[in-house]
Amino acid sequence: MRPSERTPDQLRHVTLETGITRYAEGSCMVSFGHTKVLVTASVDEKVPGWMRNSGKGWVTAEYGMLPRATHTRGRREAAAGKQSGRTQEIQRLIGRSLRAVVDLEKLGERQIVIDCDVIQADGGTRTASITGAYVALAIAVKGLVDKGVISENPIVDQVAAVSCGIFNDVAVLDLDYDEDSTAEADSNYVLTGDGNIVEIQATGEKRGFSRGEFDQLFALAEKGCTELFELQKAAVAAA
Amino acid sequence: MRPSERTPDQLRHVTLETGITRYAEGSCMVSFGHTKVLVTASVDEKVPGWMRNSGKGWVTAEYGMLPRATHTRGRREAAAGKQSGRTQEIQRLIGRSLRAVVDLEKLGERQIVIDCDVIQADGGTRTASITGAYVALAIAVKGLVDKGVISENPIVDQVAAVSCGIFNDVAVLDLDYDEDSTAEADSNYVLTGDGNIVEIQATGEKRGFSRGEFDQLFALAEKGCTELFELQKAAVAAA
Amino acid sequence: MRPSERTPDQLRHVTLETGITRYAEGSCMVSFGHTKVLVTASVDEKVPGWMRNSGKGWVTAEYGMLPRATHTRGRREAAAGKQSGRTQEIQRLIGRSLRAVVDLEKLGERQIVIDCDVIQADGGTRTASITGAYVALAIAVKGLVDKGVISENPIVDQVAAVSCGIFNDVAVLDLDYDEDSTAEADSNYVLTGDGNIVEIQATGEKRGFSRGEFDQLFALAEKGCTELFELQKAAVAAA
Amino acid sequence: MRPSERTPDQLRHVTLETGITRYAEGSCMVSFGHTKVLVTASVDEKVPGWMRNSGKGWVTAEYGMLPRATHTRGRREAAAGKQSGRTQEIQRLIGRSLRAVVDLEKLGERQIVIDCDVIQADGGTRTASITGAYVALAIAVKGLVDKGVISENPIVDQVAAVSCGIFNDVAVLDLDYDEDSTAEADSNYVLTGDGNIVEIQATGEKRGFSRGEFDQLFALAEKGCTELFELQKAAVAAA
Amino acid sequence: MRPSERTPDQLRHVTLETGITRYAEGSCMVSFGHTKVLVTASVDEKVPGWMRNSGKGWVTAEYGMLPRATHTRGRREAAAGKQSGRTQEIQRLIGRSLRAVVDLEKLGERQIVIDCDVIQADGGTRTASITGAYVALAIAVKGLVDKGVISENPIVDQVAAVSCGIFNDVAVLDLDYDEDSTAEADSNYVLTGDGNIVEIQATGEKRGFSRGEFDQLFALAEKGCTELFELQKAAVAAA
Amino acid sequence: MRPSERTPDQLRHVTLETGITRYAEGSCMVSFGHTKVLVTASVDEKVPGWMRNSGKGWVTAEYGMLPRATHTRGRREAAAGKQSGRTQEIQRLIGRSLRAVVDLEKLGERQIVIDCDVIQADGGTRTASITGAYVALAIAVKGLVDKGVISENPIVDQVAAVSCGIFNDVAVLDLDYDEDSTAEADSNYVLTGDGNIVEIQATGEKRGFSRGEFDQLFALAEKGCTELFELQKAAVAAA
Repeated sequence: MRPSERTPDQLRHVTLETGITRYAEGSCMVSFGHTKVLVTASVDEKVPGWMRNSGKGWVTAEYGMLPRATHTRGRREAAAGKQSGRTQEIQRLIGRSLRAVVDLEKLGERQIVIDCDVIQADGGTRTASITGAYVALAIAVKGLVDKGVISENPIVDQVAAVSCGIFNDVAVLDLDYDEDSTAEADSNYVLTGDGNIVEIQATGEKRGFSRGEFDQLFALAEKGCTELFELQKAAVAAA
Repeated sequence: MRPSERTPDQLRHVTLETGITRYAEGSCMVSFGHTKVLVTASVDEKVPGWMRNSGKGWVTAEYGMLPRATHTRGRREAAAGKQSGRTQEIQRLIGRSLRAVVDLEKLGERQIVIDCDVIQADGGTRTASITGAYVALAIAVKGLVDKGVISENPIVDQVAAVSCGIFNDVAVLDLDYDEDSTAEADSNYVLTGDGNIVEIQATGEKRGFSRGEFDQLFALAEKGCTELFELQKAAVAAA
Repeated sequence: MRPSERTPDQLRHVTLETGITRYAEGSCMVSFGHTKVLVTASVDEKVPGWMRNSGKGWVTAEYGMLPRATHTRGRREAAAGKQSGRTQEIQRLIGRSLRAVVDLEKLGERQIVIDCDVIQADGGTRTASITGAYVALAIAVKGLVDKGVISENPIVDQVAAVSCGIFNDVAVLDLDYDEDSTAEADSNYVLTGDGNIVEIQATGEKRGFSRGEFDQLFALAEKGCTELFELQKAAVAAA
Repeated sequence: MRPSERTPDQLRHVTLETGITRYAEGSCMVSFGHTKVLVTASVDEKVPGWMRNSGKGWVTAEYGMLPRATHTRGRREAAAGKQSGRTQEIQRLIGRSLRAVVDLEKLGERQIVIDCDVIQADGGTRTASITGAYVALAIAVKGLVDKGVISENPIVDQVAAVSCGIFNDVAVLDLDYDEDSTAEADSNYVLTGDGNIVEIQATGEKRGFSRGEFDQLFALAEKGCTELFELQKAAVAAA
Repeated sequence: MRPSERTPDQLRHVTLETGITRYAEGSCMVSFGHTKVLVTASVDEKVPGWMRNSGKGWVTAEYGMLPRATHTRGRREAAAGKQSGRTQEIQRLIGRSLRAVVDLEKLGERQIVIDCDVIQADGGTRTASITGAYVALAIAVKGLVDKGVISENPIVDQVAAVSCGIFNDVAVLDLDYDEDSTAEADSNYVLTGDGNIVEIQATGEKRGFSRGEFDQLFALAEKGCTELFELQKAAVAAA
Repeated sequence: MRPSERTPDQLRHVTLETGITRYAEGSCMVSFGHTKVLVTASVDEKVPGWMRNSGKGWVTAEYGMLPRATHTRGRREAAAGKQSGRTQEIQRLIGRSLRAVVDLEKLGERQIVIDCDVIQADGGTRTASITGAYVALAIAVKGLVDKGVISENPIVDQVAAVSCGIFNDVAVLDLDYDEDSTAEADSNYVLTGDGNIVEIQATGEKRGFSRGEFDQLFALAEKGCTELFELQKAAVAAA
C-alpha cells in the first residue's frame, strides 16, 4: 500500500496553471500533488557569447528551491554563495530535455531562459519542472509566432517527465517524498510525445535492481507521460 | 494624477493570505497591488553560535527575488555566487524591524528565520515584505505558545511598513514601480502599532527635499500603517 | 551627562586635512574626535560599461575599515573574500550622497571613485566619510576645472552628514562609540548646503522612538551640518 | 564503420595498473584506449561531521581533469574558483556507484575518499573512473582487512561501468571521443557483478531514441561490464 | 645617477613613528621616502585551531594596499573577492620573517596578528612592512611583559629588511618606484641583528645577473639593515 | 648522513620523459627521485587581453597537486574554491623563470601555457616543475619552428632549478621530503645555462643562516644545475 493510498500506476493530482505572472512571456505553476513549481519562460533577444553569429537560438534553464519549500528549512543558495551539485545537475537536465524538442535554427538567434523555482517540495521536483517548463516554453514561443517575430514554430514535439521507483519491492509511478525517501530505486524518465526517450536517470538507492524491474518502471513512465501530454495540450491550448 | 489613478493618500489593494505553505510554521502571501511576496517563518530550535547560552532568542530574515519577478529577467543571485548589496540591505532591514517588536528573552533560546521571496515586483517589495513578515512571525509564535513551547507571547507590538515618495512634486503614499522609477524622493517607514518609529529611510533621488515635504511623507506613512495594522490583525486572527 | 562631557548639541572636534596623499587627485583625512577616515578621490577617464556613450559621468564610492581600526581586531574583508552587508550599505550611501550634489552631465563622461578607508573607528564612520568625501571630491573637481578638462564646475551644492541619537532618553548630536553602542535610537542625516535632505536613516535600536524625538534629532542634525559646511568651505578653499 | 575500426560490441583496450602511487592506500591507473584516469583511494579515520557517531563509514569521490587532458586546453577549475556542474555530476555518480557495493556498517566509522584525475581524455572518463575506482577501493579495503583494522570485508559485490551510444544509427559499445561528439544518443551503465543495475544515465543527444534502441544499448553494456569484471578481478588479485 | 639623486648605497629617509593608533597593542607608521605603511600588532589570546594545546604561540601577518596608494587606482581586493597572489606572497613573507626572531614557546599560547596596510606606495612596500612590523611587534610584546602576562621576552633578535637592485648596471640600495620599474634585477633581504639571513628573494627582471652582482647586492643589504636596526632600537626604546 | 644515503652534493635520480600526452604541443614527466610532475605546454594563438596588439607573446604557468600526491590527502583546490597562497607563489615563480629565457617578441603574439601537475610529492616540486617545464616548452617551441609558424627560435638559453638546504648543519643538494621537513634552511635556485641567476629564494626555517652557509648552498646549486642542463639537452634532442 502506498502512503498516499494511490494504486501503483496512479499519478498524483497534476495541475498546470498558466498566465500566473504578469511579466514573463510564458509561465506555469505546475503541481504534482503537494509539489509546486513556479516556471517562467523569458525571451532574451541575445544569445550567449559562444553562440553569437551561429544563426541558432538557445534554450536554457535555471532551478532553485525556496529555503522553506521543504520540511525543514534549507540554506539559501544565494547566501551560501553557490549552487549545489544537485541544483546544477537538475538545471542541466531541464535544459537538455527542452532543447530535445526545439529546432534551434527555427528559433533564430535568441535565447529562452526557463526559471523553475520550487515553492513546495514533496518529491519529483525535477520531473514536475520539466513538465511545466514545456508549457511555459510553448506559450512563450506561441507569443513569438503570434507577434510575427519568428515565422515557423520551432517546437517539434512535446516533452514531459515523471519519476518511478521501487517501493516496498513494488514498481510505482510518481513517487512522493514519503516514498522517495525510503524507495529501493528511484528513476526519472523524460519522454517525447512520439514515444521516444530523451533522458533516463535510474539509480539503485537501497540496492541494485534487475532488468525486469527496470522494464516495469519504464512501462509506468510511458503510462504517466501519456497522461501528462494530454494535460500539457489542454494547458497550452487554453493559454 | 498618479499612473494608477489612486489619490495621493491611497494604498494599493493589499491582501495578506495566510497558511499558504504546508511546511512552514507561519506563512503569508502579501500583495500590494501587483507586488507579491511569499513570506515564511521557520522555527529553529538552535540559535546562531554567537548567541549560544545567552538565554535569548533571535529573529532574522533573508530576502530574494525570483529572476523573472521583474519586467526584464534579472540574474539569479545563487548563480551569480553572491547576494547584491541591495539584497543584503533589505534583509538586514527586515530583521531589525521584526526584532523591534519581539522580546528576545521571552522567545527563549531559539531562532525564527523569515524568508521573503518576491514572486512579482511592482515597487515596494521591502515594505510589503516587512508587513507580511509580521503576519508570518505572529502565526509561528502563536503556534509555539499554543503548543506550550513558550509560556508568554514574546511579540510586544505590531510592526508594518509602507513607502511614500514625492512624485511630480506631490507627496504620495505607497509608490508602485511606475512612480518609484521617476519619483523625486523615495522613503520607507517602519512603524509600530503604538505609533513609534522603528526605521526611516528617506532618499532624495532626483533632488534633495525639504523638511516640509518630509513632514507630508511622514503623515502619509502614519495613515498607511494604520490601515495595514488592521489588515494584519484580521489576518492573524483568522489564521 | 555624555561620556565625553560634551553638551547634547556639541560636535566632536572635527578636522579636515587635505593634500595628504601624493597620487590621488583629491584627498582628505577627516577626524571626528577619535574617528579618522582617509578619503581619496580618483579621476578615471572611463565610465562603467553600462554608462558608455551616455554623455554623462559617474561618482561612486568604496568603503573599508582597517582590521585594527576598532577596539578588537576585525576580519580583513579581502581575506574573508567578500564585503559585508554593512560595508556595502555604507558605500552605496556615500555614493548616492555625493551624486546628489553633482551635475553628472557637466562632469562629462568620466568617473570619480571615492575611497573611504577607516584608520580608526570611534562611531560615526559613515557620516565622517561623507563629510570628508565632499572635500576630496571638490578638490579633484577643482583640479579638472583648473586644468581645463571640464569647463564648468559640476558640483552644485555642498553635502555633509552627521549622526544623532537618543542616549539616556536625551537627543544628542554626533554619537561616539560609547554612546552609539548603548543608544536607544541612532540616526544619520545627509543634508545639502541649501538645507535640503539628501538622506535620512533613523533606527530605533533599543526601542521605537516618537515623532517628537525625531524632530529633536533632526534639529540637531541641521545645527551640526551647518558647522560642518563651514569647515568644508575652509578646507576646500585652503587646498 | 566505427572510426577506431572496432566492431559495435568491442571495448577499447582496457588496462588496470595498480600500485602506481607511493602513498595512497589503493591506486589504479585505468586506461580505456587513450582515456587515462589516475585513481587513488585514501583512508581517513574520520567521517564527515554529519555522520559522526552513526557507527557507519562513508565512501565519497572527487573528480578532476588536468587542464590539457583534452584536445584544447580547458580552464583549471582551481583557478576558476569552482567545480563545473559537469564535474560535480560526475563525482556524485562515482560516489553513489561505489557505495552501492559497500556495506557501510562493516566499514566502520571511517571514510574512504576516491580521487579520479583524468590524465588524458578520449571519451568515457566517468565510466573509466568508476571501473578503476572499484579496483583502488578494493585494494585499500583489503589493506584494512589485512592489517586487522576491520574484521570483515565490507565490499559486497563488484561494480563496473561502461558507455554505449547510437552512432550512425548503430548501437555501439564504449564510445571514444570521435564517436561521442557526434553520437545520436549517449548512455552510461553502472552494473554490479551479480547483474543488477546501480545506475543508468541515457540521453538523446541529436534525437530521441526508441525503446528498442535502448534495449540494444543495455545488452551491449551487460557484455562490456562482464569483460570489465574479469579485468578487475585480475587486477585486485595481483595487487 | 639615481632618479632620486641618492648615492648607490644610500637609503631613502626612513622614519618609524610609534603609538599612532589608539587601540592596537603595538603600532608603527613606517616611511621609506614616499612609501608609507601603517602597521598594527594585535594580541589575540586564542591561537588558530591547528595550534591549540600545543603550548606555543603564533605570529602571523596580513598585508593590504589602499586602492589609491599607487599612481593609478588599483582594484580593492575586498571588492574583487580575493587577495592577489602578490598579496599572499608578501603576507606569508612578513609572517615568516617575524617568526624567525620569536621564541613561540615563550610567547605562550596566544597569537599576535600583524596588519600592514600600505597608505602610499613608492617601491619597497614589503621590506618597509617587515621593518615596521618588527617595531609594532616589539612594542606589543613589551606590553605583555610589562603587564606580567608573559614572564620572559620571547623576541630573540631584531629583524629588518631592505631591497637592492641592479639599475643601469649598477648595484643600488633601497629601490624606489622609478628604479624598481626599470631595474635589471630586484632583490629583497631579510636579515637579523646578529647578521644572519632570514630570507633572500632575488629575481632577474630584465636579464639574469651574475654571482658577482649578487655579492654586491648582498653587501648593500647588510649596510642598509645595519642602519635600520639602529632606527628600530630608537623607536622601540622611545615607545 | 642523509636519510637517502646520498652524498651532500648528490642529486636524486632525475628523469625527463617526453611525449607523454597525446594532445599537448609539448610534454614532460619529470622525476626527481619519488617526486613526479607531469608538465604540459599548450600553445594558444591568443594572448591575454592586456597584451593584445603588443606584437609580443607570453609564457605563463599554472601549478597544482593531485590531492593524494602527498603522505596524507590534501584538500582539492578546485573543491576548496581557490588556489592557496603557496600554489600561487609557485606558479608565478615558474612563469617568471621561463620568461627569463624567452624572447617574447620572437615568440610573436601567442601564448604558451605551462601546466605543472604534481603526481607524487617528495620535496622539491617547484624546482622539478621548472626543470621539466623548460623541456616541455622547448619541445612546443621547436614544433612551432618546424611548422614554420615562427621563423626564429625565441628560446635564448636553458633554465633549470634545484633546491639546496642546511640539514643537520651540513649544506646538501636537492632536498627530499624527509630532509625538507626538518632542514634548518631551505633555498631554491633558478639558473640559466650561461651561469646567471634568474631567481634565488632562500629561507631560514629553523634558524637564520650565515653568509658562509649561503655560499656553500649556492655552489651546490651551480653543480646541480650543470647536471640538469645536460639531462635537459638530451631530452629535448631526443624528442
